[in-house]
Parts: sequence; C-alpha cells; structure tokens
Amino acid sequence: MEFSRKLQGAWEASGADLCVGLDPVIERMPAAIAGGLRPVLAFNKHVVDIVGDLVCAFKPQFAHHAAVGAETDLADTITYIHERFPKVVVILDGKRGDIGSTAEMYAREAFDRYDADAVTVNPYMGDDAVLPFLQRPDKAALVLCRNSNPSSALVQMALVDGKPLYEMIARRAEESWNRLRNVMLVVGATYPDDLARVRAAAPSLPFLVPGIGEQGGSPRAVALAGRRKDGRGLVVSASRSVLYAGSEAQIRQAAEAIHRELAEAPSAAAPLPHASEVL
Amino acid sequence: MEFSRKLQGAWEASGADLCVGLDPVIERMPAAIAGGLRPVLAFNKHVVDIVGDLVCAFKPQFAHHAAVGAETDLADTITYIHERFPKVVVILDGKRGDIGSTAEMYAREAFDRYDADAVTVNPYMGDDAVLPFLQRPDKAALVLCRNSNPSSALVQMALVDGKPLYEMIARRAEESWNRLRNVMLVVGATYPDDLARVRAAAPSLPFLVPGIGEQGGSPRAVALAGRRKDGRGLVVSASRSVLYAGSEAQIRQAAEAIHRELAEAPSAAAPLPHASEVL
Repeated sequence: MEFSRKLQGAWEASGADLCVGLDPVIERMPAAIAGGLRPVLAFNKHVVDIVGDLVCAFKPQFAHHAAVGAETDLADTITYIHERFPKVVVILDGKRGDIGSTAEMYAREAFDRYDADAVTVNPYMGDDAVLPFLQRPDKAALVLCRNSNPSSALVQMALVDGKPLYEMIARRAEESWNRLRNVMLVVGATYPDDLARVRAAAPSLPFLVPGIGEQGGSPRAVALAGRRKDGRGLVVSASRSVLYAGSEAQIRQAAEAIHRELAEAPSAAAPLPHASEVL
Repeated sequence: MEFSRKLQGAWEASGADLCVGLDPVIERMPAAIAGGLRPVLAFNKHVVDIVGDLVCAFKPQFAHHAAVGAETDLADTITYIHERFPKVVVILDGKRGDIGSTAEMYAREAFDRYDADAVTVNPYMGDDAVLPFLQRPDKAALVLCRNSNPSSALVQMALVDGKPLYEMIARRAEESWNRLRNVMLVVGATYPDDLARVRAAAPSLPFLVPGIGEQGGSPRAVALAGRRKDGRGLVVSASRSVLYAGSEAQIRQAAEAIHRELAEAPSAAAPLPHASEVL
C-alpha cells in the first residue's frame, strides 16, 4: 500500500493524530518486565497492547534498542505492531544522515531488515542524504526540519536567501522531494510560530511533531499551528510521558488525555493551495 | 588513554595519516570469503590484516553492517583491531544525530557496546547533538562540517553572520566543544579551498577527510590545504578504492600508494596560533 494511503487510514482508524514513541529504558520499566526475559521486547509489547487503538503511529527509537544490543527485540516489536495493529504506521526513529550507497544501506536496514513504514532522516548532507530513502512509494522519509530543542537554532536558523534554513528544507520537501507522496517533515512542538511557518512553506506535507509531554509543547497549540485545513497533516508524538506514566491504567490514561486534547483541538483555517492533492 | 594521545601515537606508529574505511558489501567480496562463515567479519579481518600497519585509523561504517544484521561482526571486528593493532584509532562511522538522553544512548552504543574510540556525529540539531559524545576524554566525536558531496552545500553553505554555516561549526568546535581535546571535524577531500577555510577556523583540531579514492579527492591537495604546521592534523580516509582493489597484493598496493602520496605530500606552512596546544 502507498505510504500516503496507509497514513490516511491510520488517522481515520485511530480518530486522532497521536503517535507514541517507544524509547525502552530497562531502569525505568516495571520490575516484573525489567527482570524477565527479553525486557525490551516485553515492555514494547506491553505499551503497544495498552495504547495501540489510540495511535496513528508508533515510533520505535533506534538507539534505545542498539545501546543494549536489542536489534532482534526491535525487529520483533515492529512485526508485532504490524500483526496486532496493521493500520498503524511504524516510524523507525534513527535520524539517518549519509549519502549514496551508504544511505541505500540505511534504507535497506529500515525498510527491509526492520520492515518500518518510515524512517527519520537528517538533511545536513543535502539532497543526497534524503533521496535514497524516497525510492519506494510504500516507504517514507521523515526529514528533520525545525527541532524542538533550543540549540538546534544554531544550525536551523542559518539563512538561505534571507530566510531560515528550516524553511528552505520545508519548501524543498514540498516542491522537489515529494514526488511519490512519501515525505514528511519533523517539526518540534515547542515553537508553534515556527511550526506555522513550516506549514506555510509546505502546505500539503504531513509533519511528525515531537516535543509534547516531557518537553512541554501543547497539543492544542500544535494543532492550531500545524494542521492542514482538512484537519489532518500531523502525527504528534509523546514518548516518556506515556511510557513511564506508571501502571497499565496510568499509561492508558496518559495516552487518552493527549488523544482527547488532540481530538478536541480546533484546526487552523488557512486555505490549502492544492486541496485535491492533500493526502 | 586520552583520545588525543592515542591519535598522536597512531600517527607516529603508522608513519602517515591514512585511514581505511570498512564498508563490507557481500556482493563485492572475494567469492571464498562471501561464501564462507560470517563473511562480513571475515572480510573485515582480511582487510585489517593486509593494511593494519599502514593506517592510523580504521573507520567501520555502521549501515554496511546493520543492513545485513551483522552487529556482532561489527563488534568482533573492532575487538580484533584493538587486539591486533592496539595503537590504531577505531572510528565508528554512524553519523549519529540526536539529543539528550537519546544521544547518550548513541554514545553508549558506540563507546560501550562497540568499544569504538570515536564516532561520527551530525550537528543539525545543535550543541545538544554533540555534547553528549564529549563527556569522556578517551572517546571522541567527529562532527560533520563540510562534506564531499555537491548537494551538501544546500545546508552547509547557509549563512551565519554572513559566513558559511560550516565555518561556524568549525569555530564552535575549536572554541567551545573541545575542552577535553576529543573533537574532530569531518571535512571532505573534494573541496580543498573549503578545507583550507575550515583549517583557518579550527587551527588545532584534527580532521577526518573522506573523499579520496573513488570520490576523486587528491591526497596531495588535501595535505596542502588541511595539515597543521606540525605536519599532523589529518586522518585521510579511503574505503572502496582499497577494499575492492582485488587480490591481497592489490589491496596492499592500493593502500601503499595512498600512504606514500600522503607521506611525501608537503604540508601547508600556515603558522598555528596556539602551537603549545597542538595535539
């Protein structure tokens, strides 16, 4: 299935634009899971079971698996999500950033070895770092654009033709990279004004928006600044504030609270230039 | 041992500033290795045995291992290098680019799980993406600065205070990030003029310089533009032109040819502002 169709289906099935990041940390897991067999896989499945019907996407984070040698757990987690919630998009958060044949190896890793639907990609090395991930209509690249941490301004606010670098990335993604409708942008929740500028530069693209929850971004502000006129266009990600909320009931409540805030949030009314091309 | 001392020792032991990248591709290996047990590990050891005395560093490339599930081979390759050539620096080329606790996980992956001496890091997310890799004096971060591929200019030539972004990264690395003398910059071989500008902005830092060999950069031009006055300061990396040169003798000859060119290349005579602080 084309990535753009899968994402549309995931939004419809989940009733909101919530994504839960899977950042397993053994020291923070419930003791019964941390002390058992394959704790990383067990914890991921535990969370997937509790919140899977509320999310349009899961975002397993690569380093949290690789640091402890849990590649097999990562692969098995993704298989589990596909089987249990086949409409949910799986985003491998690896922020890959290399070129040429090496970028092709990273695409092979994300899409073939791990069977992710999408992978986060770093554009510091230019088009060459992005295009190898865009060769398959059923697989997407999520390109870092404007991140949620303050020091990212060091690079992302550099100027291209008098405008911030992140706006150039957004325009290029919209106008040049998106031929197979499989490009998304990563835009942090902590700067709603910048999110609105990215939306203006890339009116049709879906955005992954991390930075709510522990980082302090507001779901309502994000929805207002970032949604398209059709009310879609966002995948809003929370990780630790859900994963480590406590008991099963508390994890569920944490995810439901964000889901409700997102479902009830009004969308901006900015008109879309190409409504027929909206995902 | 401090990273800066290990690097100095590696330059002295090898007699030049050659690095060989380990980019194993099963389809390009000799048939006897490709068809045997653990071909990725066997090929890496084969190359390490042939050229280990000629190099100051080996640079195993992460994706070439991860795409085929060869993490154990990557770890065992690094162990093998440490045992067989203990003075040689091992750079894990993963171009990690995340922040906070996730960046700490990537540091744990590179330095603890794989026992690399150094890891390549992408600065698109700012200081927060670099500093977590600089907490240990025996472990280094190699920060992407000015890359060898044309489209990297899209980002790296954006302007900060009227100068290219890559120069700001170089100055920041020299002046702010290098407190433990464990920062290097990644500067491609294909733009010697830009390499000279990075050297002017970061007079004391060592640089990793990929882009000779198949990408066409000249060892002599790189040495002239990039070396410090002490004749050191570079780690010049070749990968495919050595790895896939053919027979054992041909691999050895390919590495020796670059080693000789580098050993015979004159260095620039630009004075160093802080000669006492040179590594």
